[in-house]
Amino acid sequence: MSYQSPEYNAANIFARILRGELPCYKVYEDAHTIAFMDIMPQADGHTLVVPKEGAPDILTLSPEAAAAAIHTTQRIARAVNKAFAPDGLLVTQFNGEAAGQTVAHIHFHVLPRYTDQSFRRHAREQQQAEVLKEHADRLIAALSELSD
Amino acid sequence: MSYQSPEYNAANIFARILRGELPCYKVYEDAHTIAFMDIMPQADGHTLVVPKEGAPDILTLSPEAAAAAIHTTQRIARAVNKAFAPDGLLVTQFNGEAAGQTVAHIHFHVLPRYTDQSFRRHAREQQQAEVLKEHADRLIAALSELSD
Repeated sequence: MSYQSPEYNAANIFARILRGELPCYKVYEDAHTIAFMDIMPQADGHTLVVPKEGAPDILTLSPEAAAAAIHTTQRIARAVNKAFAPDGLLVTQFNGEAAGQTVAHIHFHVLPRYTDQSFRRHAREQQQAEVLKEHADRLIAALSELSD
Repeated sequence: MSYQSPEYNAANIFARILRGELPCYKVYEDAHTIAFMDIMPQADGHTLVVPKEGAPDILTLSPEAAAAAIHTTQRIARAVNKAFAPDGLLVTQFNGEAAGQTVAHIHFHVLPRYTDQSFRRHAREQQQAEVLKEHADRLIAALSELSD
C-alpha cells in the first residue's frame, strides 16, 4: 500500500491564509506563490513557500505550479542567506504524515543551517509574534535588495 | 558571513557521472536532468535527481534548470511511491557542507518514508551493488507504467 494523496481540503490552514482568512508573516507573494514565516521555526529565518494551487502534495501539483514554487524557493533561499547569514541552506518538502507533513497543502521549507547549531524540533514551539515580525522584516529587506 | 556558493568544479563525482566517466544506477534521463540511486541510501529507494547544468547549489541554478529538476523530482517521487510503497515521501535539497551537502553539484533527494522505520545515517554505508541494481530496476519499471 503506497502513500495515497489525500483529497484536497480547502479548510486547511494554508488555504485559509491564501484566502486572507488567517494572518501570516508574509515576506513574498506573486501570481502563483506566497512565502511566509513558519510560526514554529526550526531555526531563525525558517520560511515556507506555498503554491497558490490547491494541491496536497508534490505528486498532485501541476508542473506549472511546481516550476513557480521552485523559483520562489530559490528567491527565498537567497534572501534567507542574505538576511540570516547561515553556513548552509536546507530545502525540504514533506508528503504525508509519515514524512512529517502537518498541513495537507503542498509547501517547501527553506531553512538556514549553522555549523554549530542543531535544529529545534519541527512544529513544537510557537515563536513569539514580535520575533517572527522582525524576521519577516529582515527577509523583506533582503528580497528588495536582491535582483530577480 | 553568509553561505558562499563555491565555484563549480567539473571534477565532482556527479559531473563525472554526467560525462559517463563514472557509472551509476540510472533510472531516468532527459535533456536537462538525470536520476540515479544514492549508493549510500538512507532508505531503500533513495534516489537522486541531478540537473545537467553545472551549478553547485540552488542559489546558482538557472530558473530553467530548476523547473526541469522539480519536474523530474515529481516524476521520481511518483515512481518511488509506486515501486517502494512507502507511507510518505520526503524531498530534500542541501546547500553547503553545514546543510549536509557532500557533492557540490546541485541535487534533490527523493526518499520514501515509513511510519515504523527511521532513516539510516546519510552518506555512511554503501549499499551492495545487486541491491541497488534491483532497486533501480523496480523504479525503471514503475516509471514505464506511469504516464507523464
